[in-house]
Amino acid sequence: MVSPRLDWEALLPERVEIVEVGPRDGFQNLSKFIETPDKIRIVHELIAVGIPRIEVTSFVHPQAVPQMRDAEEVLNGVRGFLDRCLVLVPNVRGAERAIAAGATMLDLVISASESHNRSNVRMTVEESLEQIARIAELARQSGVRARASLSTAFGCPYEGVVPEERVLYIAHRLVDLGCVELNLCDTTGMANPLQVARLAQRMREHFPQTNIAMHFHNTRGAGLANILAALLSGITTFETSLGGLGGCPFAPGASGNVCTEDVVHMLHEMGIATGIDLAALVQVVREEERRLDLPLVGQVIRAGRSCELHPLPAL
Amino acid sequence: MVSPRLDWEALLPERVEIVEVGPRDGFQNLSKFIETPDKIRIVHELIAVGIPRIEVTSFVHPQAVPQMRDAEEVLNGVRGFLDRCLVLVPNVRGAERAIAAGATMLDLVISASESHNRSNVRMTVEESLEQIARIAELARQSGVRARASLSTAFGCPYEGVVPEERVLYIAHRLVDLGCVELNLCDTTGMANPLQVARLAQRMREHFPQTNIAMHFHNTRGAGLANILAALLSGITTFETSLGGLGGCPFAPGASGNVCTEDVVHMLHEMGIATGIDLAALVQVVREEERRLDLPLVGQVIRAGRSCELHPLPAL
Repeated sequence: MVSPRLDWEALLPERVEIVEVGPRDGFQNLSKFIETPDKIRIVHELIAVGIPRIEVTSFVHPQAVPQMRDAEEVLNGVRGFLDRCLVLVPNVRGAERAIAAGATMLDLVISASESHNRSNVRMTVEESLEQIARIAELARQSGVRARASLSTAFGCPYEGVVPEERVLYIAHRLVDLGCVELNLCDTTGMANPLQVARLAQRMREHFPQTNIAMHFHNTRGAGLANILAALLSGITTFETSLGGLGGCPFAPGASGNVCTEDVVHMLHEMGIATGIDLAALVQVVREEERRLDLPLVGQVIRAGRSCELHPLPAL
Repeated sequence: MVSPRLDWEALLPERVEIVEVGPRDGFQNLSKFIETPDKIRIVHELIAVGIPRIEVTSFVHPQAVPQMRDAEEVLNGVRGFLDRCLVLVPNVRGAERAIAAGATMLDLVISASESHNRSNVRMTVEESLEQIARIAELARQSGVRARASLSTAFGCPYEGVVPEERVLYIAHRLVDLGCVELNLCDTTGMANPLQVARLAQRMREHFPQTNIAMHFHNTRGAGLANILAALLSGITTFETSLGGLGGCPFAPGASGNVCTEDVVHMLHEMGIATGIDLAALVQVVREEERRLDLPLVGQVIRAGRSCELHPLPAL
């Protein structure tokens, strides 16, 4: 029996927004410090090839994450493009710093599971929501937008399954607090496409007025399959990292963030626009890999794009 | 606007058949020779963890592919499971050897593009079809089944786009010659999910009585996304390679075959049965990686399965 023919063209979006997280999520997880001018140069290069939005730094305590100790300098270095820059803020103090430095959109963090939230920000989820309420109020007073990233939305490495109802409950609280975008994160790569499709559909039904972004990891190889499932379920904003930078915290050598170039390649091959010049992006990533000796796991930077043909070997 | 809700449960199959190609496709591409007893042990281990079908060797000329020079010995070493073994045969001489050695199912090879067929088997596509006609006749006389693998079905590294009509034309010829299964191969990882869905749907409409298998590469990172697209389009047989063994011929360091454990992990997480004991398979692959010093790129062997939780760190 032939299964019902899906109308893929009707289901897939015409355009996707890529949010590059390498300069924050990728660099934060490196053992060596990336120098401030290098960080600023990379953001400018990413802007130049057409990446629409970039998480450029984190206003976390400099002692907690020394790699991000230059947050103010980095943001100042890209001040011509603040409307395309996102900054992570873990608490009220970070929000005050980010707003003073000129940030236009804050990324607030909270986990769907209690144990991950506790290990990540040393608060209960309820305490994090109170913190986010204060940050959202600060942001409103300053004319700055706030979005929230919900970690472990597809599973928790300490607790296992995270019920959809819990994700929806926290999401409702975040929207009520004024978050203009919700970013569901598969923090340790536990998601599968069926789960992604179900949660994406429910999120869109619950929050028709709120942009839903998704952040997948390739930790078990299914990162791009999860993106495909989300695309088929109406999600059009994805966080990705240049070269797949940003590792899995639990397994040395395992992949972390999905790779920007690989995701953009798949989207373009399907005829979905991103506004990104992929050939130029691949060139930027290859050059920065060499220049900064970055540990990249991306595929397209090795193999080239599908359209790059090979000479026929002599027989 | 919320897009139409897809009924994923109705679209996804309950069960998928995995065809493991590591012992042939993976080993063939290694620079060092895998000893015959090692090859035989691995096939037995794969059988023991529940892999339903395995391509165990290739009856190619020993000088052309020295790695496969022990084809008769390998097949003899797994003679208790010949009904689960597939062997590649590139020509009539290989078919005669395979049949004499006890093979029950032959895998015949042909490319959808002229240039790839010429570089792979030094024949035109028409000459390959004539060869396959003779092999299919031999097989029929011997009570052996024949299936065909159609290379470059999703794009050719020398020619670029391969028209769907060309794939369908060659597929019709192969079915007319008596091939009981068609295996569409994304030989150099050029496929995208939309293309896969379209071709899968047309193949199933054209060949409702023939099993359609697909063989994807992860060369640009979209291997599992392509499998998801094929699953949603009614394909239920996939070729995969243990640990992702089997490289991309054009880019050192680039990925080749999709990884068996990663594919099985994604399928099981979606509730799709394979009959495979994944935990045991991961153990086998990790042990053989160490024992034979294999260059594996699989993710699940590094990160573990999603269900393997981590202890909560002390605060």
